[in-house]
Amino acid sequence: MTEHAAAGGTTTLGVGMVGYAFMGAAHSQAWRTAPRFFDLPTMPRMRVVAGRDPQAVRAAADRLGWDDAVTDWRELVARDDVDLVDVCTPGDTHAEIAIAALEAGKHVLCEKPLANTVAEAEAMAAAARTAAERGVRAMVGFTYRRVPAIQLARQLVAEGRIGEVRQVRAQYLQDWLSDPKAPLSWRLDKKKAGSGALGDIGAHVVDLAQFITGQRLTGVAGLLETFVRERPVPASFSGLAGEAGEGTGPVTVDDAAIFFGRLSGGGIASFEATRFAWGRKNAIRLEINGSRGSVAFDFEDMNLLHFYDADDDATTAGFRRIVVTEPEHPYGGHWWPAGHGLGYEHAFTHQVVDLVGDLAAGRQPHPSFDDGLQVQRVLDAIERSSASGSGWVDLPAAAGEPVAG
Amino acid sequence: MTEHAAAGGTTTLGVGMVGYAFMGAAHSQAWRTAPRFFDLPTMPRMRVVAGRDPQAVRAAADRLGWDDAVTDWRELVARDDVDLVDVCTPGDTHAEIAIAALEAGKHVLCEKPLANTVAEAEAMAAAARTAAERGVRAMVGFTYRRVPAIQLARQLVAEGRIGEVRQVRAQYLQDWLSDPKAPLSWRLDKKKAGSGALGDIGAHVVDLAQFITGQRLTGVAGLLETFVRERPVPASFSGLAGEAGEGTGPVTVDDAAIFFGRLSGGGIASFEATRFAWGRKNAIRLEINGSRGSVAFDFEDMNLLHFYDADDDATTAGFRRIVVTEPEHPYGGHWWPAGHGLGYEHAFTHQVVDLVGDLAAGRQPHPSFDDGLQVQRVLDAIERSSASGSGWVDLPAAAGEPVAG
Amino acid sequence: MTEHAAAGGTTTLGVGMVGYAFMGAAHSQAWRTAPRFFDLPTMPRMRVVAGRDPQAVRAAADRLGWDDAVTDWRELVARDDVDLVDVCTPGDTHAEIAIAALEAGKHVLCEKPLANTVAEAEAMAAAARTAAERGVRAMVGFTYRRVPAIQLARQLVAEGRIGEVRQVRAQYLQDWLSDPKAPLSWRLDKKKAGSGALGDIGAHVVDLAQFITGQRLTGVAGLLETFVRERPVPASFSGLAGEAGEGTGPVTVDDAAIFFGRLSGGGIASFEATRFAWGRKNAIRLEINGSRGSVAFDFEDMNLLHFYDADDDATTAGFRRIVVTEPEHPYGGHWWPAGHGLGYEHAFTHQVVDLVGDLAAGRQPHPSFDDGLQVQRVLDAIERSSASGSGWVDLPAAAGEPVAG
Amino acid sequence: MTEHAAAGGTTTLGVGMVGYAFMGAAHSQAWRTAPRFFDLPTMPRMRVVAGRDPQAVRAAADRLGWDDAVTDWRELVARDDVDLVDVCTPGDTHAEIAIAALEAGKHVLCEKPLANTVAEAEAMAAAARTAAERGVRAMVGFTYRRVPAIQLARQLVAEGRIGEVRQVRAQYLQDWLSDPKAPLSWRLDKKKAGSGALGDIGAHVVDLAQFITGQRLTGVAGLLETFVRERPVPASFSGLAGEAGEGTGPVTVDDAAIFFGRLSGGGIASFEATRFAWGRKNAIRLEINGSRGSVAFDFEDMNLLHFYDADDDATTAGFRRIVVTEPEHPYGGHWWPAGHGLGYEHAFTHQVVDLVGDLAAGRQPHPSFDDGLQVQRVLDAIERSSASGSGWVDLPAAAGEPVAG
Repeated sequence: MTEHAAAGGTTTLGVGMVGYAFMGAAHSQAWRTAPRFFDLPTMPRMRVVAGRDPQAVRAAADRLGWDDAVTDWRELVARDDVDLVDVCTPGDTHAEIAIAALEAGKHVLCEKPLANTVAEAEAMAAAARTAAERGVRAMVGFTYRRVPAIQLARQLVAEGRIGEVRQVRAQYLQDWLSDPKAPLSWRLDKKKAGSGALGDIGAHVVDLAQFITGQRLTGVAGLLETFVRERPVPASFSGLAGEAGEGTGPVTVDDAAIFFGRLSGGGIASFEATRFAWGRKNAIRLEINGSRGSVAFDFEDMNLLHFYDADDDATTAGFRRIVVTEPEHPYGGHWWPAGHGLGYEHAFTHQVVDLVGDLAAGRQPHPSFDDGLQVQRVLDAIERSSASGSGWVDLPAAAGEPVAG
Repeated sequence: MTEHAAAGGTTTLGVGMVGYAFMGAAHSQAWRTAPRFFDLPTMPRMRVVAGRDPQAVRAAADRLGWDDAVTDWRELVARDDVDLVDVCTPGDTHAEIAIAALEAGKHVLCEKPLANTVAEAEAMAAAARTAAERGVRAMVGFTYRRVPAIQLARQLVAEGRIGEVRQVRAQYLQDWLSDPKAPLSWRLDKKKAGSGALGDIGAHVVDLAQFITGQRLTGVAGLLETFVRERPVPASFSGLAGEAGEGTGPVTVDDAAIFFGRLSGGGIASFEATRFAWGRKNAIRLEINGSRGSVAFDFEDMNLLHFYDADDDATTAGFRRIVVTEPEHPYGGHWWPAGHGLGYEHAFTHQVVDLVGDLAAGRQPHPSFDDGLQVQRVLDAIERSSASGSGWVDLPAAAGEPVAG
Repeated sequence: MTEHAAAGGTTTLGVGMVGYAFMGAAHSQAWRTAPRFFDLPTMPRMRVVAGRDPQAVRAAADRLGWDDAVTDWRELVARDDVDLVDVCTPGDTHAEIAIAALEAGKHVLCEKPLANTVAEAEAMAAAARTAAERGVRAMVGFTYRRVPAIQLARQLVAEGRIGEVRQVRAQYLQDWLSDPKAPLSWRLDKKKAGSGALGDIGAHVVDLAQFITGQRLTGVAGLLETFVRERPVPASFSGLAGEAGEGTGPVTVDDAAIFFGRLSGGGIASFEATRFAWGRKNAIRLEINGSRGSVAFDFEDMNLLHFYDADDDATTAGFRRIVVTEPEHPYGGHWWPAGHGLGYEHAFTHQVVDLVGDLAAGRQPHPSFDDGLQVQRVLDAIERSSASGSGWVDLPAAAGEPVAG
Repeated sequence: MTEHAAAGGTTTLGVGMVGYAFMGAAHSQAWRTAPRFFDLPTMPRMRVVAGRDPQAVRAAADRLGWDDAVTDWRELVARDDVDLVDVCTPGDTHAEIAIAALEAGKHVLCEKPLANTVAEAEAMAAAARTAAERGVRAMVGFTYRRVPAIQLARQLVAEGRIGEVRQVRAQYLQDWLSDPKAPLSWRLDKKKAGSGALGDIGAHVVDLAQFITGQRLTGVAGLLETFVRERPVPASFSGLAGEAGEGTGPVTVDDAAIFFGRLSGGGIASFEATRFAWGRKNAIRLEINGSRGSVAFDFEDMNLLHFYDADDDATTAGFRRIVVTEPEHPYGGHWWPAGHGLGYEHAFTHQVVDLVGDLAAGRQPHPSFDDGLQVQRVLDAIERSSASGSGWVDLPAAAGEPVAG
């Protein structure tokens, strides 16, 4: 595929987005904002957004800044002015859309989790490998990787600043389902969402743990639980919140997932994902302990990384509260002066920056669909473990399987 | 003045911005972003940006999203398609530009501090009052007011949740001048900047203290200090950071300011502003103690407000760590789900939302130029106190002087 | 057994302590200090301490405040002036000493874990039940229960302030073995210590989780790991630290333990215990999420309890940072004014206060040996799970088994 | 004066304490505990306590561990078995008791503030200088100096780890008077207490600021305020809390004090002391910013010191959260393993350790009465500044005046 030439010699990257809810809004903000703060080798053009409801998708296009709106994603995929398809729909549609786009020669950015089943994810990864041979690239959107403090954590681990990784402690805590009267969302429907806390937020901490350590999980055991099995059918939704309507329906996914595993480098890891932790709004907590130090992160203070360097003298050693907003830091110097922190959405902008840079350079962006497939296998193993008395499930490395881009 | 009618019946607000450095970038992001997340009664159009260097201003226009670029702000002020002039230049130019714009019938948004001297501020406030009679409005950009946690603090105080205000404790701590080799910026030049830490960041905490409490300072005493009196002349600058060039020049402003005062409601307040607090990147700390509770804030955790309710039973009373991202919170429900925090720039977007709403409704936006003048008088009183042995300086209420919009 | 009558009509409780290292010092401080701050119904008398080295035990008696020193614990147990035997030795000796003491009609306070094996713990619990019929009481020293914030957590849960318990998140993190050159301590020797992080510190969080929730674990799955399998033989020891001597020896216990389980009330729980978390000195972290709120604790801030009340209005709900030093708080009003915090050792003093009160009242003190046995069974189940591929191990309730005193 | 020879060749130090309320209880705990954890060159003997009410003082002696009780402090001072007089009474009696004790050849430990007036403090310092010629020593009890984290802060500053001191930020926040119904305590009576928040808690932060920096204040300006001028007469008291009785009485001291000053090394300092900060129970907050780093402390987390080292590389620089419980730390290795934190009372024990060590070595203990007098002069200058419109008051160095022991 060739990028289109823009006026003045800059090439452009025509983008079409499928879906325009929470993730669609975040992706749109990123496409709009990235060129304002970063020098991009290719200029994204927000060509078209697809959605089923004609009026709603038209309104979304106007609000979110897309030139055009269509009601059939196939039409979007087929358009000449679309070079990249950005998939922001629920997980049950990822495979079909992404594979069609790749086959049509479009790059793909697909929200996580890659798919609702390993089989779908395998098909997607296969399609991505085939497409890559033609220079068509696919990436999955584990966006939290692009939080500067997370990037810094990975960098410190890679530089050996904490030595050999021994333990990972990862939690993703939310509370939006704590109230039994919170209504049924599509996120509680196994058909749409694949799984509950496990796939929605557990997937993130699995990816982050592997990304920061540069290691993959080689086996897991886990326990899933659904605390509230029946909920009101929603009348309306906005973001994660909704208002209850009449009647109730079954929750068919997990409310919470606890699991542990072994890492390819010899360490061990514990995980928890829950939407029932009253008071924890979006607490992604990661701590990695190595033989020479530790790093720790909590998304509730997303501009901070805590770093313990065991090589500091015993009198003054202590977790360093690093405000990750210096020019020396990942994505630093492009936004505001030090201490003028970033928010949730900035990671999406960084994702665009990295993706556009990789595409322009002809590099495989990461996390690739293979990376996404590997996470899907981990999630699947946890579900199988839970279903069979929490016993151990091995996760053999696939041939040539990458881990962490 | 009449807003221009846009296609489809929506009126538009043509904006022209003068200056395009740190503040210009923040304002541009706000003008671009506000309509994406909020329903605005009038649609801002980013018509033109003004700057002295033709190539640089042209590049800034492209990067920041302005339709046009001019090298003379007078040309910008004169344009028919400009309804509002956004003044983002250093303080020594505020009065001239803002007064000219108001006289030309343009609304004005002017960065803080309003001016470098009380005399200039008085002239600006007078011009604003005259313009208001014609429906032309002026606002000063004390943007930190628009941080949701700050709004919530004001709301709780106004609702009586902490009772009668007794003490305010306000600090604005930065460290970008701690290194004596940090180069001279225009912010260290009294002619350009008016004052140092006092006007640049002290002004913010004076405004915030008055805004949250709804009270004004009735007298102050203070101490200013310059620790490093000679610095390298900079070769280049970006944001607050620069690289040292050859030679040195004098620092003609304060590095740090400490002051205290009395509030119109009977309370007392302590303040500190410094750029020499190693490790504190942008720590705006506010604590207000009342007769029935307290609120506390630190911009290093800008999505949090801490609230102590003395009416809670003694066993479970404690500062509540409120994550100010709920739909019930100020500016809530427009961005992301709870816990997906905002960053520094979002306050600028909220400023646009509030300003556009006030203009459309024909309301006076706040902080008005009178509010800005009042802050300028406080800063001036502190300087006079410091210059004369830290003695008390009374701040009588001006006739009809408002406090906190 | 009858307490001895003291001069003035107050009865006394003669105490004999076996062992005088870290735990012995903590217990001694508690016996000395309790009557200074609390009104005790019976006055403890520190009669005698036992240890193998005659000179060392004599010096310990003088330093720690014991009237007498003996080299044979059997002699201590046999003494007429000893009413209670306080067992502060490594776990491999607990059963023999405690059973002998109970059979001799002495009350027993035994350090945790109750024993190194379930078989020993069962024998001890049986002996305690038999002794109880004669009014002779046995208690195991899960001292962290007596931290005021922990007591408050239990109280809030018992009062229904967080609703139905859904999730427990418990970690005990230390770092004193992170350095591979840290020498072999008896705590790394399976024969002496029974297990490693699991029994030493994991036992505490198992007990605390059950104590706070008032529920017991009904099944577990776990993973134990030893990172450093050979360590220098120590030349000397003090507390947990030692200096390396010549040669190395094998570590025969776990360095870290991760496990999860189900609670008798329907909730789920995750646990971790490690001595390899660089930078975490003694971080006992507990969070309990219920249907109406949460409580959270970290021993690194031991005077604080964090409490989220979902019944607070949405605008001001937030984790309350309760400084647990008010007169209304557990053990409150006996020490210092509010905010003048307590330290590690105070929990031992509270343990003495509670134990002496129970003995004087003829009540069974808690945690009883049955409670200790139950924890031992949990530890054993985790070891069995880990040894057999982390599969689930059920923990059926023993007949009439209590949970949490 | 000669210390008495104890059995076994150890000399003893006979101690007599005047007063047995809050401070008396803390001092008693320290005298009892110090020899249990530290090797003291001289063994303190708790000979006698003095108080006016015969029954109450007898009960206090029993509870606190004093051999004898008397109702006349003059009798205590005259006793042969008393080598040191520990003055724990309100400030209006310090001068008379301390001077009499020194003249009787007794060492003196006197609670802070040294006196209620500069004149009294001068007389006491003069008496101390005279006594010192005879080897009789006097110390004032600014006990917070003995918190390990405070000692570490001083050590880091002295070693140049933060470079040249530029700013001190010191606050002592309590809330026990926030409720207007909190009854009158002797601490609110100018005759007994000398001043309010200023002398009671402001004195501590003045001392700590000077102690940590090793510099003295050379001038100050301040503002005192009394928010609640009439309070219920108390029926009873315990610690700082009391129950209201019938009738009201006037508050004759300040409720809050704000002041700033200049340090002898060229830095500036801001201070605040208040008993009206709802939710802040005993928050002593100190931050010192130097040319190469910062240290920060909050007594609400008394086992922590925060240290920013500007020499750390820009990528990983951040405030280090030092858990000050390592053997390498001040007073380290004498208590519990790392992370098993200390509480409020431990600083009193450290005070006994330091004092007994100095006496045995024939050294002048610090803070001396001259140090106490210097603090008294600072407090007096603040009161004079406040009384005269907050103008600057110089604090010339007294001849040979020391600053920080």
